[in-house]
Amino acid sequence: MTDFADRPLIGEIRLARARAGLSWASLASAIDMPVAWTVSALYGQHPLSVEQADLLAEKLSMPEGSLFELTLAPYRGSLDISSDPTVYRFHEALAVYGPALKELIAEEFGDGIMSAINFTMNIERRPHDDGDRVVVTFDGKFLDYRWTE
Amino acid sequence: MTDFADRPLIGEIRLARARAGLSWASLASAIDMPVAWTVSALYGQHPLSVEQADLLAEKLSMPEGSLFELTLAPYRGSLDISSDPTVYRFHEALAVYGPALKELIAEEFGDGIMSAINFTMNIERRPHDDGDRVVVTFDGKFLDYRWTE
Amino acid sequence: MTDFADRPLIGEIRLARARAGLSWASLASAIDMPVAWTVSALYGQHPLSVEQADLLAEKLSMPEGSLFELTLAPYRGSLDISSDPTVYRFHEALAVYGPALKELIAEEFGDGIMSAINFTMNIERRPHDDGDRVVVTFDGKFLDYRWTE
Amino acid sequence: MTDFADRPLIGEIRLARARAGLSWASLASAIDMPVAWTVSALYGQHPLSVEQADLLAEKLSMPEGSLFELTLAPYRGSLDISSDPTVYRFHEALAVYGPALKELIAEEFGDGIMSAINFTMNIERRPHDDGDRVVVTFDGKFLDYRWTE
Amino acid sequence: MTDFADRPLIGEIRLARARAGLSWASLASAIDMPVAWTVSALYGQHPLSVEQADLLAEKLSMPEGSLFELTLAPYRGSLDISSDPTVYRFHEALAVYGPALKELIAEEFGDGIMSAINFTMNIERRPHDDGDRVVVTFDGKFLDYRWTE
Amino acid sequence: MTDFADRPLIGEIRLARARAGLSWASLASAIDMPVAWTVSALYGQHPLSVEQADLLAEKLSMPEGSLFELTLAPYRGSLDISSDPTVYRFHEALAVYGPALKELIAEEFGDGIMSAINFTMNIERRPHDDGDRVVVTFDGKFLDYRWTE
Amino acid sequence: MTDFADRPLIGEIRLARARAGLSWASLASAIDMPVAWTVSALYGQHPLSVEQADLLAEKLSMPEGSLFELTLAPYRGSLDISSDPTVYRFHEALAVYGPALKELIAEEFGDGIMSAINFTMNIERRPHDDGDRVVVTFDGKFLDYRWTE
Amino acid sequence: MTDFADRPLIGEIRLARARAGLSWASLASAIDMPVAWTVSALYGQHPLSVEQADLLAEKLSMPEGSLFELTLAPYRGSLDISSDPTVYRFHEALAVYGPALKELIAEEFGDGIMSAINFTMNIERRPHDDGDRVVVTFDGKFLDYRWTE
Amino acid sequence: MTDFADRPLIGEIRLARARAGLSWASLASAIDMPVAWTVSALYGQHPLSVEQADLLAEKLSMPEGSLFELTLAPYRGSLDISSDPTVYRFHEALAVYGPALKELIAEEFGDGIMSAINFTMNIERRPHDDGDRVVVTFDGKFLDYRWTE
Amino acid sequence: MTDFADRPLIGEIRLARARAGLSWASLASAIDMPVAWTVSALYGQHPLSVEQADLLAEKLSMPEGSLFELTLAPYRGSLDISSDPTVYRFHEALAVYGPALKELIAEEFGDGIMSAINFTMNIERRPHDDGDRVVVTFDGKFLDYRWTE
Repeated sequence: MTDFADRPLIGEIRLARARAGLSWASLASAIDMPVAWTVSALYGQHPLSVEQADLLAEKLSMPEGSLFELTLAPYRGSLDISSDPTVYRFHEALAVYGPALKELIAEEFGDGIMSAINFTMNIERRPHDDGDRVVVTFDGKFLDYRWTE
Repeated sequence: MTDFADRPLIGEIRLARARAGLSWASLASAIDMPVAWTVSALYGQHPLSVEQADLLAEKLSMPEGSLFELTLAPYRGSLDISSDPTVYRFHEALAVYGPALKELIAEEFGDGIMSAINFTMNIERRPHDDGDRVVVTFDGKFLDYRWTE
Repeated sequence: MTDFADRPLIGEIRLARARAGLSWASLASAIDMPVAWTVSALYGQHPLSVEQADLLAEKLSMPEGSLFELTLAPYRGSLDISSDPTVYRFHEALAVYGPALKELIAEEFGDGIMSAINFTMNIERRPHDDGDRVVVTFDGKFLDYRWTE
Repeated sequence: MTDFADRPLIGEIRLARARAGLSWASLASAIDMPVAWTVSALYGQHPLSVEQADLLAEKLSMPEGSLFELTLAPYRGSLDISSDPTVYRFHEALAVYGPALKELIAEEFGDGIMSAINFTMNIERRPHDDGDRVVVTFDGKFLDYRWTE
Repeated sequence: MTDFADRPLIGEIRLARARAGLSWASLASAIDMPVAWTVSALYGQHPLSVEQADLLAEKLSMPEGSLFELTLAPYRGSLDISSDPTVYRFHEALAVYGPALKELIAEEFGDGIMSAINFTMNIERRPHDDGDRVVVTFDGKFLDYRWTE
Repeated sequence: MTDFADRPLIGEIRLARARAGLSWASLASAIDMPVAWTVSALYGQHPLSVEQADLLAEKLSMPEGSLFELTLAPYRGSLDISSDPTVYRFHEALAVYGPALKELIAEEFGDGIMSAINFTMNIERRPHDDGDRVVVTFDGKFLDYRWTE
Repeated sequence: MTDFADRPLIGEIRLARARAGLSWASLASAIDMPVAWTVSALYGQHPLSVEQADLLAEKLSMPEGSLFELTLAPYRGSLDISSDPTVYRFHEALAVYGPALKELIAEEFGDGIMSAINFTMNIERRPHDDGDRVVVTFDGKFLDYRWTE
Repeated sequence: MTDFADRPLIGEIRLARARAGLSWASLASAIDMPVAWTVSALYGQHPLSVEQADLLAEKLSMPEGSLFELTLAPYRGSLDISSDPTVYRFHEALAVYGPALKELIAEEFGDGIMSAINFTMNIERRPHDDGDRVVVTFDGKFLDYRWTE
Repeated sequence: MTDFADRPLIGEIRLARARAGLSWASLASAIDMPVAWTVSALYGQHPLSVEQADLLAEKLSMPEGSLFELTLAPYRGSLDISSDPTVYRFHEALAVYGPALKELIAEEFGDGIMSAINFTMNIERRPHDDGDRVVVTFDGKFLDYRWTE
Repeated sequence: MTDFADRPLIGEIRLARARAGLSWASLASAIDMPVAWTVSALYGQHPLSVEQADLLAEKLSMPEGSLFELTLAPYRGSLDISSDPTVYRFHEALAVYGPALKELIAEEFGDGIMSAINFTMNIERRPHDDGDRVVVTFDGKFLDYRWTE
């Protein structure tokens, strides 16, 4: 089941990848981009170049040109998957630690934000005696509130 | 302005800390706990022990017993601060990278989640030539879907 | 912090219980009622008798008559605590297993519902080698759709 | 009527099961899994293995490969069926007994949650003189809030 | 507990009635009005005359003039109590039988509505071998869509 | 226009009935069921037996088997038609008289609810000098809150 | 672009009218009804007679019978077009002048409402030196709250 | 009961007017303004001049300066009274006749709107044999979409 | 991926433009209109003349008449793209600077608004040593609140 | 009337400014900051320095220290004033011109955003023969999506 009734292309990509038995990592290396970026792009969150779209369609055994839509300027952020438990836990962490994020950025950096544009996201496994851990890193440039004339 | 009309104690703590000129780090070291944990506890997201509540009230020059409420079992997650730009950027990152979180945890770990309970959060500054960066680490135990009888 | 700005009496009860160092079980035994029922009543979800209200106020060292409000016909279900992770997990279980609840009640009992009125709820600890388990039982009378004239 | 316009595969499975006159229990035994798990998987809440998907499609007289979508990493929890009275009663029980769940887990186990991942759900009939009863058991591992470094 | 933080007068009336041990029926007979109308008026849904307000305040042992607010033109319908199970069942009945109400009014009366203004509501007990029944009657004038010039 | 884009079968039934010039009452008598029940079933709110589905399809001149979907366990209550004025007036009546329903059931019956499962709904015309009236009766078994062990 | 994805018939009518170059006034005169009523009916807000549907389909050069759906009992009010600035200004006027409508109807007529069923709506141009004005008249029968037995 | 917990000044004005037995019309004539404008201003929807505020406070026997707040630039439109039946009927009329408003303004005036700023609203009684009628006139300047450079 | 499931024509226009390799500026100059107006029109926010629709369809290599829908009176403002970060930043700016817009328009112009109908919008690049800047100008006629009779 | 029940300090500042007869421009010049910045700060959207807070309190004849709260790290963006017509027009402009903002930033600058942090906002009067115009300039640094490692 796709769960992607309004975005059929995403559903097709998910099925094509599973049918081809390809990892996301192998798709990422086919276009020489970070894997988190690549997944996001195939979910319509970052624009592919025409060359990347062609390479990925071929790799996924999808018809030529079928990923052309993903080269347009994307309207990001409209895919609501927050009810999924894997994704929800990150929302829960923000609900619990949001004030800490706010106060500690203010204390360490001053009045401003972590950029979500000049930004890198990474996921790693950290082995641990009590069970391995998921380590997610958000790494964005600090931007201070600045009234520039 | 407090913005905390329904939770006056949070507003009072914020003012008391500012009036006393204390950093969050100094409050954390007064109770020997991590600073992200300490901010969250003072925002009502983790329960303090009675001793911690007493130490922090003294440090903040607040009346004895005034933090006793923070020792109760907390109803976490009800403070909605997502309209603040500093906090919103994290929600935006989840909107853009949520599918990557989902797919890469599935690819690396299998069907399951990152725990938000057996969990640590950390904020650090990373110097960079293009401007220093905010690096936030979410580190939680992997839990696989398991039907235990 | 109470989190109960619009229902100050609940906040006061929570504080009074903590100050008196009383367990919910001891409050339940003071009125000889099940403990899950008793907690619910003190959160305004079941009406106390005047005698129960008096006994509990005394036990909690609250002023005589201060629990009288809890003897009125209660408007149940308006307290939204679903953002709390302990409570949220039950909502998540309904989101994942709701169709199973629906289909298996239909398969085993026919077209109808589990009553939430003629109903008992219970929480127990189940020891387990991989870590103890929380076992919650919902036990309600089956009601079949019946067109009675 | 399917009520599953955006998830046509669920509607097809429901119809196929009814046309074949198969119980959920028989589908579960065909893949040797618990019945509550099996219903949830066929509603897209747990991933099937390719073998399970093939077995179930055959059993349901659906075309080979038609359940392949159910082998992908599922986005759980997005199916909103809470307006159905059979399902709603569980939401109502949470609204009335949510504080009891919160307080009694805290009293018995300490600060933490019942896992909804390391979790089993079960439905049984309990005969009773006043009418048989639906008994639903939620059984999940206790997880305490733990700041692991 | 009042549950009426934003409408303290309703909370006071509820408490005053309980303290005085008065039935709603006795309040209704004090002003010689139907009991369903009287409850609604004391919940701010129908305007009292000044005489009625004075009589009811006296009967409830409330200070003279304390019900004067209830003589103003009321903003009806803003009290959301639909989460209460007793009230919710009526909403559920509308969800299930709404189309029947629509189609059968059209079939019997033509294109129009049951007035909720020229309207009477009544509650009665109907004894029944399987348990007594709550019988609620909604009785409103039929109004046909009419383009009057 | 159907207004039933996500539930095309309902739209088809509505059109088939109108084309055949059949009253709801005649459909009800074809299966010997109450008319309010029959309309609700054809809107997917009550399950038909296979025989009823066949009879109604024939009566409506719809293809054999086309109403089979209506024999499945229905997810009730998801059809939102509350913006229609004929239906809205009932919601408005609940908004105005909800507290009266709550208080008078409590006064007459005690702490409990009117069942919406063991329930009958009826619509009648009452002639009146000022214009005929729509009389709707909700008749459900009283269920008291009962903690059954 | 239609903006009417879920109500394709409305989109077709809009296109057919534009292609035929017909004014709404000419459609209204074809069935000898007021123009505001006619537009509303073609948007599914009032039921057409079969004759009116046939006349309008012919006038619009649409296939015979294509407007038959518009003869069914309509579910009114579900078309949300309030984001359109032309429509929004009326909502804004209600937000600003709603209390005046409430208070002045109470002052002039007593406790009651303007009927939206026995109701006429009209739009006219009023020439003015500062620019012509849109004059919209809502004209509905006054209905007083009346408890009729 | 005020229903104006967050805007106590409105509640006080409503009570003061009722206690003084003054009509809205008399308040309007005291400041020589239209009555619909005056009610709106006293509900915080239009700014009073300091002189008007003083005159009205005196007329209402309220303390000098108590209406000063109403002289500030008002944040209009935030008072949600749409659940009140008298007000709701206007929203219902917009839901039913919104498309007619849109299409007939386009047909008569072209692409544009009725201004809600350069705007007058009026309420009148129209005697009628079938019962007197409420006639509400919205009269606003037509503004065409115009790209001015 | 289009993100425009309910408005397929917009998705087709976006794809056609990208396939043809045309800038928005070149489309605007083809019809001799401002570029911001032209993009808005092709997103269904302003009506095209039939000539403009024909010219643009030809330029985009779309079938003759395929843009005819865009000549109808448009229902503006229903396209919710506020989750996209590029668009969201403008909403954020309104959230932070909304009170300044309100107060400074009041201070400079008096009680009124900036028209969004008699309105021009423009985007420009402003070179800056710290990085080039996006400069967006909203330019609308001031309209004062005016009660015109 | 304040409209600021949950943020009483904002209400007090608004009243104090009006009582003192001070323009926003004069408050801005007292602290030598841009006027749009100053209004935003006094509405709790930018942090004041302690010196600025003291200067403004004195200027507003408010008690010493009364603006200290405004020196804390502000939670921005939570003040919802979008129902006010002056503010709403800007939201409407975004609804109509949002796609143009998105597409033209992409066309002129590439894949990225206008910063709302490194940002200046300005309001000016532009005289015009058809009536003076409000000109609002949003001026923010362009930030391109950049994956920095």
